[in-house]
Amino acid sequence: MADATGLQLSQRHFMNTADLPQQEIQALIDLALSLKHGEVKPSLAGKTLATLFFNPSVRTRVSFATAMFKLGGQALDLSMEGAWSFEFGDGVVMDGATIEHVKEVAPVLSRYCDGLAIRCSELVTKSAASASAGSWQNARQDLVLNSFARYATVPVINMESNVYHPCQGLGDAVTIKEQLGQPQGKKYVLTWAYHPKALPMATPNSQMLAACDLGMNVTLAYPEGWDLDPEIVKMASQRAKQSGGSLQIEHDMDTALEGAHIVCAKSWGALQYYGNWEAEKALRVQHKDWMVTQAKMQHTDNGRLMHCLPVRRNVEVGDDVLDSPTSIVIDEAENRLWAQMALLATLL
Amino acid sequence: MADATGLQLSQRHFMNTADLPQQEIQALIDLALSLKHGEVKPSLAGKTLATLFFNPSVRTRVSFATAMFKLGGQALDLSMEGAWSFEFGDGVVMDGATIEHVKEVAPVLSRYCDGLAIRCSELVTKSAASASAGSWQNARQDLVLNSFARYATVPVINMESNVYHPCQGLGDAVTIKEQLGQPQGKKYVLTWAYHPKALPMATPNSQMLAACDLGMNVTLAYPEGWDLDPEIVKMASQRAKQSGGSLQIEHDMDTALEGAHIVCAKSWGALQYYGNWEAEKALRVQHKDWMVTQAKMQHTDNGRLMHCLPVRRNVEVGDDVLDSPTSIVIDEAENRLWAQMALLATLL
Amino acid sequence: MADATGLQLSQRHFMNTADLPQQEIQALIDLALSLKHGEVKPSLAGKTLATLFFNPSVRTRVSFATAMFKLGGQALDLSMEGAWSFEFGDGVVMDGATIEHVKEVAPVLSRYCDGLAIRCSELVTKSAASASAGSWQNARQDLVLNSFARYATVPVINMESNVYHPCQGLGDAVTIKEQLGQPQGKKYVLTWAYHPKALPMATPNSQMLAACDLGMNVTLAYPEGWDLDPEIVKMASQRAKQSGGSLQIEHDMDTALEGAHIVCAKSWGALQYYGNWEAEKALRVQHKDWMVTQAKMQHTDNGRLMHCLPVRRNVEVGDDVLDSPTSIVIDEAENRLWAQMALLATLL
Repeated sequence: MADATGLQLSQRHFMNTADLPQQEIQALIDLALSLKHGEVKPSLAGKTLATLFFNPSVRTRVSFATAMFKLGGQALDLSMEGAWSFEFGDGVVMDGATIEHVKEVAPVLSRYCDGLAIRCSELVTKSAASASAGSWQNARQDLVLNSFARYATVPVINMESNVYHPCQGLGDAVTIKEQLGQPQGKKYVLTWAYHPKALPMATPNSQMLAACDLGMNVTLAYPEGWDLDPEIVKMASQRAKQSGGSLQIEHDMDTALEGAHIVCAKSWGALQYYGNWEAEKALRVQHKDWMVTQAKMQHTDNGRLMHCLPVRRNVEVGDDVLDSPTSIVIDEAENRLWAQMALLATLL
Repeated sequence: MADATGLQLSQRHFMNTADLPQQEIQALIDLALSLKHGEVKPSLAGKTLATLFFNPSVRTRVSFATAMFKLGGQALDLSMEGAWSFEFGDGVVMDGATIEHVKEVAPVLSRYCDGLAIRCSELVTKSAASASAGSWQNARQDLVLNSFARYATVPVINMESNVYHPCQGLGDAVTIKEQLGQPQGKKYVLTWAYHPKALPMATPNSQMLAACDLGMNVTLAYPEGWDLDPEIVKMASQRAKQSGGSLQIEHDMDTALEGAHIVCAKSWGALQYYGNWEAEKALRVQHKDWMVTQAKMQHTDNGRLMHCLPVRRNVEVGDDVLDSPTSIVIDEAENRLWAQMALLATLL
Repeated sequence: MADATGLQLSQRHFMNTADLPQQEIQALIDLALSLKHGEVKPSLAGKTLATLFFNPSVRTRVSFATAMFKLGGQALDLSMEGAWSFEFGDGVVMDGATIEHVKEVAPVLSRYCDGLAIRCSELVTKSAASASAGSWQNARQDLVLNSFARYATVPVINMESNVYHPCQGLGDAVTIKEQLGQPQGKKYVLTWAYHPKALPMATPNSQMLAACDLGMNVTLAYPEGWDLDPEIVKMASQRAKQSGGSLQIEHDMDTALEGAHIVCAKSWGALQYYGNWEAEKALRVQHKDWMVTQAKMQHTDNGRLMHCLPVRRNVEVGDDVLDSPTSIVIDEAENRLWAQMALLATLL
């Protein structure tokens, strides 16, 4: 068995799948499936990945910890909930609440560890939200993630920022490849689902990009007003075309699901109300009918249901789907592990 | 040295020592002592045990972490203090406070990890107490533990539930065997001790069962009104008889200690006041004289003092006992490690 | 490559560098540099170091975790923030808030683990401050650390107590040796710097001692009133003389920096106001000019700037120094790792 992956990426960090050429994404998917089948055994013996969670996590934390351990290394979990006292600005006189500058934190951690994995999503952290003062134009700069990437001297992995969740995107791509064999030209529907709270857009952005990079015919389905960031949608559409696929938008779930091979359910907040979530909620509650049920799945071509989890049962997706073979959400979660192993073995 | 334990259990999960036939418990005890003496060296290389603590822990957490590491694996500690938002009910419309169903959590963790160890004791977790609405009939269902066991696809280990603490029971059995060589027919006293708070019954239940499974003559000593669950006592009595021992109850500590070889001190709450702890406390404070001192130990047959720890010095047990060779509480704590190593090596 | 360090220390625990003869400190420094250069490869396979943080930490935690992992062992992090309920007194009737005595905790952890590393600094823990009732005479007893050392049966490492931070001292000694080759007779300035809060004295105490043990000509520079503990200064002065160096005190930063080869910036609280920090602050704010800038560094003999981190930029030290080759703070932080690896490989 090969003890090295033989794969080199063109980027030092892993911030967004779309930073990579499509053949590198394909190579990562293939490597993930080889790892799952036990065909390769790369080693990161003695290496440490520091995982910095500015937002809490169970799935991501466990999958990174087991990925590193299976490779002979370790993940070192640094809960950063209380660490918003980091300073990111240039030239600041630090006589206030911030106690340490990223210019020190990032290089020091780089001396101790072989990689840094960072989760920082403002929408789910009250203290962090203030960093962008409720503005999407600010939030999309991903100040925390990009500051670490700038000052770290080891690879930085995005475990979910305001804008992207590329590990979810890569894991979903592995699952789609595993299910369909040849995803190119097959129909993928990313459908909005009702959820009592406004959720971040990072996951649907990366899920959309992943399906586009597989050359699928991608349909985004959501109620009017819930558009994703138009620049990212444009980029996704271009990448779909590059690989023989397409991207379209549909505001009726039944129509969207027609003939689908993969249905990915996901809720997100309306971008136009970013930081004004009470107003968003008043509109959101009008769309409780956006739930994926077995009846909805009848429109598909024997389609499989994906969801990044956690899922609100009988709100986003019905029990009748989740408890049936239609659902592949547990496989999807498992593939996070193999996708991240492929990434770590290649990057570190 | 053998690299495998050669031992198979008849149960997939480890929920209660009494789920196992007595010869399997004996085999686990023997394996634990072999591990302690360095006679076997089983390997769990590359394997991960997720430890889910819904209640805080130091001793259990450290002993599981070192047990896994000595076997070449790792324990991954998931603090679940804030995770009471899991849903356990069937068919629930999850539009409220619960954000993830055990139907997803358990199988997903099973894909990442090789075993799940769970501590969930309602009596020590305010938020959890509400789950049973203060009713022992509800609490004894052990909803959290049993739901994980139902939906997990890897072995589940009970690190203390409302009803049982089988790892403590198994560790205590190892200690008794180590001390007495041949415990059968020797006298074991499990004596209630005063403590300012009502404590859970899981530990005394499992301690009682462990001594009964060793064929000891077991005496339960406690003030009137502090009976343990009668169904569990009945089961313990039956298992004692199976292995040549006996079980009796005594309400005077001096009489109970007469001729004892092992004295295990333990406080617990009065079951009849479950969920009504203020009323229990009013009665409890009348029994401050239930403290094990060297004077009390004079009644025994050179008996040794066990306690699961943490112990309230000069409240449950006197300094004069704890600081003398009469006490084997540190050995008892250490044997948790070897007992759990035996269990992990066999189960995972 | 040697798989053992061949080094034995005269002390079982590592509480203070000054507990060791100077040749042992030199041997640890040399071992740390050998480890950094990959010339030796000692193993702590299967061994566990429990790290008990009564105060939070990132740098120390990560450097100990990676040090143990590079040696084949593991660090097991026990956050003890909520654990001030330990009892340390003799003969106490434990019917109050304390739930476990150090007489049990320390020996039990010793059975599970191969070493205990402890951080307990009262000045940064509100709940702990009460332990000494705001008195330096009490605080300098280091009750928590010394109680663990007394009852543990494995080596105890001081990760910062009220009085000493010997791991920082040892790491700094490694950095000085690495920079200067032959530190003896070179000039080292430990200069106080302004900081909005009163900080502990443990780090400057150990930094001073480390430079003295290297036989450097040490100057302590600080505003009048900010004297360190006179007994520790006296001990440092004696150890400087033993190794051919000297110790002097200066109250003008410019004069102090004249001809310096190493400048170590550090803030600390005024000992005479220990526990009366509001009064201290009123005086402290008069010394905002105690900031190390490139202009100040002009007085030195091409001196390098050290700081234990975290550093308040443009308060303690200016950007112009930190962002220039004058600063060796990142190397200094890295050397914590190699110093601790040397210590662990020798002690455990």
